Amino acid sequence: MKNISSGELKEASLPRLREICETLREEIVDTVSVRGGHLASNLGVVELTVALHRVFDFPTDKIVFDVGHQCYTHKLLSGRAAAFSTLRSRGGLSGFPKRGESEYDCYETGHAGTAVSAALGIAKARDLKNAAFNVIALVGDGSFHNGLIYEALNSLKILNTRVLIILNDNGMSISPTVGGTHELLSEMKEGDAPIEDVALFERYGLTYMGVYNGNDLEELLPALQSAKKALASGSVLLHVSTRKGQGFAFCEREPERTHGISLGKSGAEYSTALGEELTALARRDGRVVAVTAAMTDALGLRPFFREFPGRAFDVGICEEHACVLCAALATEGMRPYYAIYSTFLQRAYDEIIHDICGQKLPVTFCIDRAGVTGADGETHQGVFDLSYLSPIPNLVIAVPKNIAEFRAMLRASVNFSGPLAIRYPREGEEGELGDFEMLKFELLHSNMSEIIIYAAGERCLRLAERLYAAASERGVCCSVVNARFVKPVDREMILSRNEKYLITLEDNVLAGGLGDAVARVLREAGLAQERVLRSFGYRDAFIPHGQAQELARDFGLDFESILAYIMECHARG
Amino acid sequence: MKNISSGELKEASLPRLREICETLREEIVDTVSVRGGHLASNLGVVELTVALHRVFDFPTDKIVFDVGHQCYTHKLLSGRAAAFSTLRSRGGLSGFPKRGESEYDCYETGHAGTAVSAALGIAKARDLKNAAFNVIALVGDGSFHNGLIYEALNSLKILNTRVLIILNDNGMSISPTVGGTHELLSEMKEGDAPIEDVALFERYGLTYMGVYNGNDLEELLPALQSAKKALASGSVLLHVSTRKGQGFAFCEREPERTHGISLGKSGAEYSTALGEELTALARRDGRVVAVTAAMTDALGLRPFFREFPGRAFDVGICEEHACVLCAALATEGMRPYYAIYSTFLQRAYDEIIHDICGQKLPVTFCIDRAGVTGADGETHQGVFDLSYLSPIPNLVIAVPKNIAEFRAMLRASVNFSGPLAIRYPREGEEGELGDFEMLKFELLHSNMSEIIIYAAGERCLRLAERLYAAASERGVCCSVVNARFVKPVDREMILSRNEKYLITLEDNVLAGGLGDAVARVLREAGLAQERVLRSFGYRDAFIPHGQAQELARDFGLDFESILAYIMECHARG
Repeated sequence: MKNISSGELKEASLPRLREICETLREEIVDTVSVRGGHLASNLGVVELTVALHRVFDFPTDKIVFDVGHQCYTHKLLSGRAAAFSTLRSRGGLSGFPKRGESEYDCYETGHAGTAVSAALGIAKARDLKNAAFNVIALVGDGSFHNGLIYEALNSLKILNTRVLIILNDNGMSISPTVGGTHELLSEMKEGDAPIEDVALFERYGLTYMGVYNGNDLEELLPALQSAKKALASGSVLLHVSTRKGQGFAFCEREPERTHGISLGKSGAEYSTALGEELTALARRDGRVVAVTAAMTDALGLRPFFREFPGRAFDVGICEEHACVLCAALATEGMRPYYAIYSTFLQRAYDEIIHDICGQKLPVTFCIDRAGVTGADGETHQGVFDLSYLSPIPNLVIAVPKNIAEFRAMLRASVNFSGPLAIRYPREGEEGELGDFEMLKFELLHSNMSEIIIYAAGERCLRLAERLYAAASERGVCCSVVNARFVKPVDREMILSRNEKYLITLEDNVLAGGLGDAVARVLREAGLAQERVLRSFGYRDAFIPHGQAQELARDFGLDFESILAYIMECHARG
Repeated sequence: MKNISSGELKEASLPRLREICETLREEIVDTVSVRGGHLASNLGVVELTVALHRVFDFPTDKIVFDVGHQCYTHKLLSGRAAAFSTLRSRGGLSGFPKRGESEYDCYETGHAGTAVSAALGIAKARDLKNAAFNVIALVGDGSFHNGLIYEALNSLKILNTRVLIILNDNGMSISPTVGGTHELLSEMKEGDAPIEDVALFERYGLTYMGVYNGNDLEELLPALQSAKKALASGSVLLHVSTRKGQGFAFCEREPERTHGISLGKSGAEYSTALGEELTALARRDGRVVAVTAAMTDALGLRPFFREFPGRAFDVGICEEHACVLCAALATEGMRPYYAIYSTFLQRAYDEIIHDICGQKLPVTFCIDRAGVTGADGETHQGVFDLSYLSPIPNLVIAVPKNIAEFRAMLRASVNFSGPLAIRYPREGEEGELGDFEMLKFELLHSNMSEIIIYAAGERCLRLAERLYAAASERGVCCSVVNARFVKPVDREMILSRNEKYLITLEDNVLAGGLGDAVARVLREAGLAQERVLRSFGYRDAFIPHGQAQELARDFGLDFESILAYIMECHARG
C-alpha cells in the first residue's frame, strides 16, 4: 500500500478514516498470509493505532508497544508501508518495534510487561531534560498478569512523572486471560466499573478513563483527546476494550489459533509429542502435573489440560511465579513439568537457580523453541539457554536428537532424582530411538578416523549427518556422537575416544555451551594438548529475524565451513 | 537457651508467653552480636512467630518465610535452640530456612517475593494428595512491591486452593518502603482500611483481616485463631502491623542500619567508593542518574540520593522494573547506573539481555557482593554472574583489581558506548591505580618464566600475589596479569604472551567464566596444543554459609593446591 502521511491522517473525515482502517486491515491480512506473523493482535488495534496517530504527534510523542506484536499498523502509518511486504524476512521489516528501523520506534520489546516501566523511564528522562512530549504505553490485558506491570505502577509516584497507559483489553493473552486480575478488568468493561476498581488505579496515581467499544473511532477519538488533555496534569490509565482479530471473521472466531501465523512448517512438532507423552505419564502417575505461563496450545499441552484439568495450571504470563509454583509442588511429592519457550525462561532465571536447583527438586523444564527460531527475531531466538543453564549446580540439561528420543527423555524424567531441563526446537522428525541411557552420549558412527563430531540436538545432528556423508564421499571418515546431555557432558565417553580432532556443534551461542564443557573435560583430564577441539555454534551477536536455517548458517553453523575444516583436519592428519 | 516444647508453648499463660518472647529476643540479640545476621527483621516478628506456633501445628502445618531473614524465632521454637549459637557459621545453623536442617523448614527462601507462590504450590499439592494441613506465607510489606506477589495473587482463583497470607507490615523493606502500594497499606493500618482497599484483596479471592498492634500477643492470638477458622473455607490475608527491631531500642531507632549486622569487616568498602564517584560524576554530567531496588545504603548510594534526589530512584524490591527503567532512561540520552547485588541481578536476567544489551544501551551495572560473600549462604553468594553475563552480546564485563581501579572504571564508564557490568566484592583495599585502559588487561609481573597467572578481581589478584611471592621464595618465577575484563578478554595480550602454562583465577563457578573465555581464545587461535591452561574457580555446587575466605578455599580457590600446581608446572618445564 502507499504511505499515508501524518497530515492526511490528521485531516481525514471520519468515513475516510474508516476506509483507511479497512485498507490497513487488508494490507495486514495480505502480508501475514505471505510472511506469517501476528494476526489477531494486530487486527484488534487498527482503529486504536489510527486514532493514536491522529491525536498524538509521533515521533515527537513516544509510544512503547508492550510485547510489540501489535505494531503493524504503527509501522504502516510511519513511512514503512512500501517496505511492509518484506515483513519478517531477512533484511526486511521486523515484526517487532526496532529503533534501528525507524525513529517512530522508540523502544524495543518482545516479551510481556515491560512497556509501563519503559514509558516511565522515557518520561522521566524527558522531565530531566526539560523537554515536552507525551509518552504512551500500549499494554494488552494479558500483560496485566505479569508482575513487572505492578512493579512499574508502584513506581508512578516515586518517579513523579506523567505517562498515558492504554490498557488494550481483548480478554486474551495468547490463551484467554485467566485469574483475579482478569475478573477485575471484566467487571470494569461491563460499563459499570465499580468504584473500588477505579480506586485501585487511582491509588497508584492514575486517572482512570474507559472506552468500551475500542474498535469504534467515534468513541475512540474523543476518549484519546480527553486522555491527552488529562495527561497534561498527571498520569492516565485509558481502558480500551477491543476485539482481537476484529474485522476478520476467522480470527474473531479463533483468536488463539490466529494469534501467530507461521508458515513453512516442515516437520512434526515436538509440542505434539509433549502433549501425548505427558498425558500418558499422568495416566500412570498421579504425581504428574503440568504448568504453563499462558501458552497451553503452542506448547502442545491442550490434551493434558483436557484430560487432567485439575492437574494442569495456566497461570498467565507469569514465568517466575510458575517456576516457584513448580518448586513448591515438588516439595510435596508432585512431579511438575514446566513447559515454556527458551527465550521466556530467561524471565525465571533466579527462580530456576534458587527455588528449583538450590533445593534440588525434581522439576522438569520442557524448553520449546530452543535454538534459532527465525522470523520473530532477536527477542525470540532460543540461543542462550545452554549457556545460562550450564553454570547452575544440580541441573541436568538434555538435548534430544529427535522426537522419539524426546519421548524417551520424558519417560525417564518422571523418576529422575533432581531438576532436569530438556531443550528442543519447534519442529523435527519422529525418527528412531537408539540406545537411550540417562547422562550418556550415544555413538552414532564410529570408525578408525582421527575426527569425531559431538553434536547436540536435532538441528546439529542433522548437520553432523550431512557432514559425515559429504566427508565420506570425499573419502574422509569421521565418528559422530549424539551429545544429548550438555550438563553434565559424558566425560567417560569423551575420555575414552582416541580421535585427535574433536568438533562440537550446538544450536546456541558459543560462550558457555557444549564446546566449552567438552573443552573443560579435556583440560581437567590433561588431554587438551593431544586433542584439537573446534567448537561451532553462534557467534557473539543478537540474531535478527529471517529464516531459521539461513540464520543458523550465517551466524556460525555453516555446513561448507565445517566441511572445509574437516578436510583440513584430515589433511593435517 | 533451652528448647521450648510445642506442648509448653501451647499451654503457657499469657504472662509466661511474654516471658518466652523476652527470652527469645535476648537469645537473638546475643547470638547476632556474636555471629552477625538479621537483627531488626527478626526482633519484629518474635510475638507473631510465638503466636503462630501456639495456634498452628508445625511441622504438620507448613509455613513459608518470604526472604527468610525473619525465621530465627521459628528456628528457636523448632528444636534448634541448643544449636542456635552456631548460627551462620560453617556447619552451623543457616540464617535462612533450610529443608535439610529441620522438617519445620518446608521451603527455602532468600530473595523477596516467592512465599505466596510457594505456599500456593504446597497447598495445591496437599489438595491433590487429599491431605489436610494449613499453609501459611509470612510476607513483609517490602515484598508487596515485588511483581512476583501479584503474579501469585492472580493465581489464587486459578489454583482454587486455600492459603493464609500474613502480611507483616513494618513499613520498611531494607530501606523504608516506597511507592503506591506502601500508601495503600499505610492507610489500612491506620485502623480504618478503606472499603476499596479491602475490596482489592477480596477481588483476588482473599478474606481480609487485620491486627494493628502485631507485637501484642493479646491482639495477635485471637486474630490468628480467627484467621485459622476462616482458612477452613478459603484463602485469608491477615494484615499484621509490627515494629521492626521491636524491644531493642537501638534497632527501633535505626531499623535500616540494623537490618543486617555483619562482623569482621576488614577493609574499605567498594560501596563507599561507588557513592563518592557517582556523586562526583553527577556533578559534572547532568546525564548521570542512579537506580536501586531498595538497597540505597548497602550499595553506598546515600550521598548520591542526598545530593541529587531528583536523579536517584529507589523503586523498591523490583529488580526487573529497575532494569527496564534504566534502559528507557538511556534511550533518551541519560547515563543510568544500576547498583545491585550480584545475586539479586539474577532477577533481571531477561531484561539485561533484551532491554539493555539487545538495544546496546549505555547502562552501567554496579554489581556489588560479587564472588563468595559468606555467612548468608547459598542464596547470597555472587558466584554465577560472570557465567550468566558472558553469553550476552554487546555487554562488557569489568572486574577491578582494587578500589582505585574501580573508581577509574566508573570514570571511564560515563562515556562508554554500550552496556557495562562492573562486578566487585563488598570489601577490599583502595590500593593504587596502575596503567588503566578500557578492554585491556594489565601486566603486573613479567619475567622469563613458563608460567603466567590471569586473575580477575581483588580476591583473586591477592591470591595471585601470594602465589607469586611463595613461588619466588621457592625459586620459581611466574608472570601475573590483572584480567580486569572478562568479556571480552584481552585477546591481544593472551596471544602475545609466550608462557607455556596459563593459570586462570576467578571468584565464580568455573562453567562459563574467565577460564572458559581464555580457553576459547586459545582454541580459536590454534594455540590450545602448545599452551597448558588450568582454571581455578568454584566447583559445580551451591556454596553454603560460612566465612568467605574459608569457603573460597574449600570450593576451589585453594592457595596450597594452586601453589603445588605451579611447582608441578615448573618441574615439568
